[in-house]
Amino acid sequence: MAIKTLEDLFIHELSDTHSAERQMAKALPKLARATHNPDLAAAFELHLEQTNVQIERLDQVVELLGARLKRIKCAAMEGLVEESREVIESMDKGPLRDAALIGGAQKVEHYEIASYGTLCALAKQLGHTDAVKLLKATLDEEKATDEKLTLLAEAGGNQMAAEAG
Amino acid sequence: MAIKTLEDLFIHELSDTHSAERQMAKALPKLARATHNPDLAAAFELHLEQTNVQIERLDQVVELLGARLKRIKCAAMEGLVEESREVIESMDKGPLRDAALIGGAQKVEHYEIASYGTLCALAKQLGHTDAVKLLKATLDEEKATDEKLTLLAEAGGNQMAAEAG
Repeated sequence: MAIKTLEDLFIHELSDTHSAERQMAKALPKLARATHNPDLAAAFELHLEQTNVQIERLDQVVELLGARLKRIKCAAMEGLVEESREVIESMDKGPLRDAALIGGAQKVEHYEIASYGTLCALAKQLGHTDAVKLLKATLDEEKATDEKLTLLAEAGGNQMAAEAG
Repeated sequence: MAIKTLEDLFIHELSDTHSAERQMAKALPKLARATHNPDLAAAFELHLEQTNVQIERLDQVVELLGARLKRIKCAAMEGLVEESREVIESMDKGPLRDAALIGGAQKVEHYEIASYGTLCALAKQLGHTDAVKLLKATLDEEKATDEKLTLLAEAGGNQMAAEAG
């Protein structure tokens, strides 16, 4: 029973999310190379820059707490990254693979929206006001990325429909 | 290269989501038993009933298409279920474990919100109007479940704060 207080739970969730972000930072250049669409490649590259900033924010939160991250590997993000690898292996480069990559990226964004939602709630309950601000900034970025991906999915779908019709 | 058309991708995503829902249906009774809070146990039990209906809807969509599901195991949901197992192992029964279980359940809900969002978009692009209706019904349920979990998290957090203060 390693987690005994709300503070322990907060550190655990921060460590899990830190692992998730690092796994995503490693996967994003592969996603950018796997796409056929320059707009999508640019979105993945921009999101890599944001992810690096988001990792720094998590480090700042840990520093504010005077805590240390635990060495854990986020199992859910492992599964999400594995699914993107399967997409790349099972589809040729082109609009169809792009549609699948966008779907996979939106699962990642929603995973992170839920993670940062929980982190914000825990930080608030613990009265860590500065941490709330940092975590909320990332939460807003993840939501904006999800919306941008929805627009890219719609544009790609319309193009595929136009080419098929 | 097994996925060659948008229809193939739709079947692949349906198969992945079907696997995710079945894994969740298996996990939910364990989550209901692991909680200390009767309201949360009731929410998990209700969500199990909904999940079974959601699996039936996916079966209906597959039947409408005259297709067959592929045998795949959703790797992301495997990771999400594994994380809930870790929560149960690392925390005693009580409000803290409940807070962690709610956080985990919200990650699952967001995973499913993204999955059904992609499925709705694909069904729309393919012109499968009846499938869109079925998938949209589930999407709305997943969003409502996520909102209910946020309220349960807030109530639990306020109670912990009151007891600590």
